Amino acid sequence: MARFNPLVETLAAPPIPSVFAWAAAYDGRNGPMIDLSQAVPGYPPHPEMLRLLGENAASRAYTGYGPIEGEDSLRAAYAAYLRETYGAPLAADNVHITSGCNQAFICAAMAIAGAGDAVLMSDPYYFNQETTLAMLGIKTRFAPCDPQNGFLPDIDALAAAIAPDVRAIALVSPNNPTGAVYPPALLSAIYDLCAARGIWLILDETYRDFLPAGAGRPHELFGRKGWEETLIGLYSFSKSFCIPGHRLGAITAGPAVVEQVAKIMDNLQICPPRSAQAAVATALPLLADWREENRREIARRVEALRAAMAGAPAWRIGAVGAYFAFIGHPFDGVSSARVAEKLAKEAGILCLPGSYFGARQEGYLRFAFANADVDTIGLLQDRLRRFALD
Amino acid sequence: MARFNPLVETLAAPPIPSVFAWAAAYDGRNGPMIDLSQAVPGYPPHPEMLRLLGENAASRAYTGYGPIEGEDSLRAAYAAYLRETYGAPLAADNVHITSGCNQAFICAAMAIAGAGDAVLMSDPYYFNQETTLAMLGIKTRFAPCDPQNGFLPDIDALAAAIAPDVRAIALVSPNNPTGAVYPPALLSAIYDLCAARGIWLILDETYRDFLPAGAGRPHELFGRKGWEETLIGLYSFSKSFCIPGHRLGAITAGPAVVEQVAKIMDNLQICPPRSAQAAVATALPLLADWREENRREIARRVEALRAAMAGAPAWRIGAVGAYFAFIGHPFDGVSSARVAEKLAKEAGILCLPGSYFGARQEGYLRFAFANADVDTIGLLQDRLRRFALD
Ligand SMILES: Cc1ncc(COP(=O)(O)O)c(C=O)c1O
Ligand SMILES: Cc1ncc(COP(=O)(O)O)c(C=O)c1O
Repeated sequence: MARFNPLVETLAAPPIPSVFAWAAAYDGRNGPMIDLSQAVPGYPPHPEMLRLLGENAASRAYTGYGPIEGEDSLRAAYAAYLRETYGAPLAADNVHITSGCNQAFICAAMAIAGAGDAVLMSDPYYFNQETTLAMLGIKTRFAPCDPQNGFLPDIDALAAAIAPDVRAIALVSPNNPTGAVYPPALLSAIYDLCAARGIWLILDETYRDFLPAGAGRPHELFGRKGWEETLIGLYSFSKSFCIPGHRLGAITAGPAVVEQVAKIMDNLQICPPRSAQAAVATALPLLADWREENRREIARRVEALRAAMAGAPAWRIGAVGAYFAFIGHPFDGVSSARVAEKLAKEAGILCLPGSYFGARQEGYLRFAFANADVDTIGLLQDRLRRFALD
Repeated sequence: MARFNPLVETLAAPPIPSVFAWAAAYDGRNGPMIDLSQAVPGYPPHPEMLRLLGENAASRAYTGYGPIEGEDSLRAAYAAYLRETYGAPLAADNVHITSGCNQAFICAAMAIAGAGDAVLMSDPYYFNQETTLAMLGIKTRFAPCDPQNGFLPDIDALAAAIAPDVRAIALVSPNNPTGAVYPPALLSAIYDLCAARGIWLILDETYRDFLPAGAGRPHELFGRKGWEETLIGLYSFSKSFCIPGHRLGAITAGPAVVEQVAKIMDNLQICPPRSAQAAVATALPLLADWREENRREIARRVEALRAAMAGAPAWRIGAVGAYFAFIGHPFDGVSSARVAEKLAKEAGILCLPGSYFGARQEGYLRFAFANADVDTIGLLQDRLRRFALD
């Protein structure tokens, strides 16, 4: 048999499908499964979103190939939304639309690093970023996040880990898996570090729209002079608009980065799917209030989670934020995969083992609590309290 | 400024947009531009296709994440269609759906080669395959196709070019850019060569549905015992269904290849866009007659092209087939880009320079004649006859 690329062959199978297999083995003894596994909004898209998706998909206007960088309408609408979010003068040519934020990440990674280069990540990390780099032959280095400090990355640990082969620091805020929201001052310090060392800061803000209302701007980096030479921002329309199946994300960067990414994307898929772009271009301003309401709903779910966990004190909240909580389990020395598998099959709680996000995370589980409504989250308390490993 | 990946930075800008810029400079003196540049069907999608796209896009059923390998419905429908086309027992687990055939190629390439490995291509080649490999750090080797032999690849040239680092031969039939249709016996011999040397044969059949009616099966390779250990087939729904903007393609391979590709695709985009998959699953059997009629229409366009070229004898048909013709221009020693630019700006004929498909192809232009209807193709004769370089 002809050979495979060993970098791909040695990758583990995608984690989410294997977790779904545990769910299938739950016998329902505690009532319906509480699914906190994949980060998918637990409420439907707005009916107007569905109407727009249908209308544009049925149109001849979007059947041909489109611009590699994305539809002008969506680039402009997203730039307007960025200006509002960051208070910075971002324009359509700062935007490259992608088929989701995983694709935004691989494009950004390929634009700035090749096989043999390295990218520095925080530990825990978002697993698809790690596997993306691994399959490209890009080395990964890790700076540990301190559990005592709410899993925020440590600026000195990052600085110490910037070996000469490091081309970028890749971060996620609000964080997946921990939920930790990186304060603007910390992001500012990390940006300064990257600028001083001549490396990129790739910042994945997939969960930005779920930051607590009134929390202020996520950061001030897009207002920095010369930010285009250091910063690459990533975003997903999957979560905010509840449309992951339509695959849309975006890169925010300087025009020079957009130009490199366009060359990659031409090879990767010629252009992003078009009709959904047109739909989201209209929905972005139109559904602003609905997104605000979702933001408040997620905040209520955070409170419900805190209350539930307070009633099951053997389990600790390591960090909790815009979409996720990183939960310390009470079984010292037991692997997080074993705890998660048992939780799924016996307690009817589906979540991801901490080890999926880094070898040091065996003591933790990721709860994508935003998937579940307040009442369902309330059921966690009892199921967790009664849970035992035999 | 932080650095770019030199493999990406040194890639040329995507070719199609630069050619569109020539078109914008045409003053219309000979009547409307004849656009033979990008391979896009010159007729609209079937109204039922648009209706299905709209209906499925408006459905809540496809808003969530879907299976990485593609919707079960489309994998099954495409497998049924493959069984019919090749007379071979292909099943849904032989199919991985992608966002177009460029993405199918990059996934196949990454599955079987990494930076430092090599892939062997025919020369001329489809440019996105070359740039895809280049940006991944995969070396490219080339075996020349003989213009005297209708631009078919030469089995001895291929065999001689299989250096120890070559992991695969990548071919396109019906060919882009030349239009050459590789006979089943030739494909069979190339398959045997690959199997004997333990390397993959990656066969892009994007234009398969435009093979002349009654031409018989494209090849017998999927019926070979153990084909899964050598062959990876690629296909695009863009051309046959006139829906490139919806981004759908497919890989046909053994389950072991599908498993590797799924790991890559999880990183690349989690899953292909879903609602269009559901629409095409229904359309595949439903629009079979319509596709047959298009096949006949393309055959009429081939005839129209032959007639037009016969009336402009200074221009030679190097090869012509399912979608493209590779046309020898009469200006010895003049670069194909200069001829193409002048043809666009002064004659109102938009086509691609041969050099985009390989450095040896300066004497040729690619006409994507299938973009134009029979009457429009007829206008070529006069425009080509009167064309002069000053
Ligand atoms: C941090 C982060 N980035 C990127 C993604 C990918 O999102 P998508 O490709 O659906 O836009 C996810 C999805 O869970 C994520 O959690
Ligand atoms: C030979 C070949 N392969 C692949 C593609 C990509 O097609 P798509 O990505 O639209 O499926 C094309 C498009 O022109 C092509 O000519």
